[in-house]
Amino acid sequence: MRDVAIIGVGMTKFGELWDQNIRDMFAEAALKAMEDAGVKKLDAMYVGAMSSGLYTFQEHIASVMADYIGQVGIPSTRVESACASGGLAVKSAIIEVASGMSDIVLAGGVEKMWDADDGSMILATAADQEYEGFHGVTFPGLYAMMANAYMDRYGLTREELAQVPIKNHKHAINNPNAQYPFPLNLDGVLKSSMVADPLRLMDCSPITDGAAAVIVCPLDRAKEFTNKPIKVKGIGAATGPIALHDHKDLTRLDAVRLAGERAYKMAGVTKDDIDFVEVHDCFSIAEIIVAEELGFFGYGEAGKAIANGQGTYGGRIVINPSGGLKAKGHPVGATGTAQILEAVTQLRGDAGKRQVKDAKIGMTQNMGGSGGSSVVHILEAV
Amino acid sequence: MRDVAIIGVGMTKFGELWDQNIRDMFAEAALKAMEDAGVKKLDAMYVGAMSSGLYTFQEHIASVMADYIGQVGIPSTRVESACASGGLAVKSAIIEVASGMSDIVLAGGVEKMWDADDGSMILATAADQEYEGFHGVTFPGLYAMMANAYMDRYGLTREELAQVPIKNHKHAINNPNAQYPFPLNLDGVLKSSMVADPLRLMDCSPITDGAAAVIVCPLDRAKEFTNKPIKVKGIGAATGPIALHDHKDLTRLDAVRLAGERAYKMAGVTKDDIDFVEVHDCFSIAEIIVAEELGFFGYGEAGKAIANGQGTYGGRIVINPSGGLKAKGHPVGATGTAQILEAVTQLRGDAGKRQVKDAKIGMTQNMGGSGGSSVVHILEAV
Repeated sequence: MRDVAIIGVGMTKFGELWDQNIRDMFAEAALKAMEDAGVKKLDAMYVGAMSSGLYTFQEHIASVMADYIGQVGIPSTRVESACASGGLAVKSAIIEVASGMSDIVLAGGVEKMWDADDGSMILATAADQEYEGFHGVTFPGLYAMMANAYMDRYGLTREELAQVPIKNHKHAINNPNAQYPFPLNLDGVLKSSMVADPLRLMDCSPITDGAAAVIVCPLDRAKEFTNKPIKVKGIGAATGPIALHDHKDLTRLDAVRLAGERAYKMAGVTKDDIDFVEVHDCFSIAEIIVAEELGFFGYGEAGKAIANGQGTYGGRIVINPSGGLKAKGHPVGATGTAQILEAVTQLRGDAGKRQVKDAKIGMTQNMGGSGGSSVVHILEAV
Repeated sequence: MRDVAIIGVGMTKFGELWDQNIRDMFAEAALKAMEDAGVKKLDAMYVGAMSSGLYTFQEHIASVMADYIGQVGIPSTRVESACASGGLAVKSAIIEVASGMSDIVLAGGVEKMWDADDGSMILATAADQEYEGFHGVTFPGLYAMMANAYMDRYGLTREELAQVPIKNHKHAINNPNAQYPFPLNLDGVLKSSMVADPLRLMDCSPITDGAAAVIVCPLDRAKEFTNKPIKVKGIGAATGPIALHDHKDLTRLDAVRLAGERAYKMAGVTKDDIDFVEVHDCFSIAEIIVAEELGFFGYGEAGKAIANGQGTYGGRIVINPSGGLKAKGHPVGATGTAQILEAVTQLRGDAGKRQVKDAKIGMTQNMGGSGGSSVVHILEAV
């Protein structure tokens, strides 16, 4: 396999983008990434989108987007793995370049969520429709069960759990692309509407419109395009049980652990080499379990550690410097690509006030459903 | 890039499968392919499905399927490119093996179409929603415009056009998995219901439930699994304009020509080396234009040539020995994988009464929308 580098990134602002349709958003992110890399012609592209069919009644979106960014003719493939679609699109692009099939490949993620009036039901298509969907369960309910099991077993308090979104909102203040770049305090979490006990509105990532894109090429060509190439050091993906009731343990996400192990192995690094991590905090409890599955904290320890400042600047590891899904926003198909963009921005040293000092190696973790899929990338400044 | 071989294939019967849901169908095809290859453990898998969200309200289908065939834990990625989803899933699996990332990879396609009551509208999500969909155009109308333009320019008669489905039904009689394995005569076509002038019901591929799967591995390992490995000699994919009004010529499908050129180049063969071809005859006119874009006939010549027996046994080249989309059936996400299965079956010499004599090199051509995407594979018996 050839070594691969990321040479360009671009994204829209995340939020309620009433003035942009799904094409406009994707094109903005893709063209910014191409401008960032200084490339005018792509060899191939991948588009991550969870449910463009249900959200916008447009499938075949990879061809739509190739056409709309002026690249008609190139191979273009949509990749879908629920909320991990964007991360898997980047992984697919990396594999294509690693194989030698193509040199300059764009991977973009996009989701237009605000135009639909039944967004939570559409998101529920990422769960097991025959068993979970049939019984009316949606994701807040599934993650609430995980939160209850975790809090019961490990004694995590409601106040400690609230520190996850509080931290992520604090990080987002310095992210100009974030949907909710405002501070959040304990009262703000604890007095927000109950969604699914114990999860309140401020534990839940929002509905978001947005797109993000990255461009990859062979590492040995990267210097043609940028003086700050970012090497793809490791990638790992895995599936987990599609239904939460098939998890052996409600406080574990096997797909995350497997994806992490595969990425660490390929990269030849350990958790101690990682300077920051963007994780999939779709709900506050998710960030805690993911941080444990990736090895940054022991089982049962991440919740209290994050509440004690170990997940932010000056702590054990900076988790979600971008603000994460909770505060940056979660346009599901774009989330994985936006995580990679944040990692690249940090590794380039371009993150401004949210810069992680001396960041050399960063990690991203993107997830589908209640752990039905996950994909992990390890990136390095070279 | 490593050379890649196909070592196993499997499919369901195509038709109205009221007793099987989307999981049952996929599992049947996948497990048959695994049994055919003699493999119990996969390294990764790809799932081609056009619109599992709109048809069955289940996205995240690659994880669902990995779980349901007992392979939970492996990376699994859904690929979507409308009716070319299955072909692109196979291409993605080939690239992953070629890269060295994985050895044993399954690519399956599936679509459960009969359960939806608005199937034609769901298919229309493969067209340009903002322009074509907005005006109410669906695919029979788009292909009817292509048929009218072709018939007008080249003098193809309505009776000659009818010979495409008549030939494909004749082929399907010998395919035990075909949805409509019965003969069709000229009256049967010309007196069938008008759908979109000049296309009648018997010019249109049907609504179909079904699944098909193939397993690929490095060519140098293929003999561990089979004494009849089929080498992947060339692959090519391309996009075309998503909207028909952006085609420079209504009688051309640029994506097909580009995909074919790329596959021929990679394979190092020409049209004269191809012994048979499975093409995407979603409508009778499509088979004609595709056969021209792949170089088997000059522009304007394929319609009359097929009517004169040049597209069947004993003619210039056997087109759609399986019966094609028209008579074998068209479960959109599964069509591309089923084409590969037919090519493998022919190249193994296992096609029984529909065997193409001395078949050494075969081609498949899968297409999305009105030519918004296409993917071509060239396979060889080794």
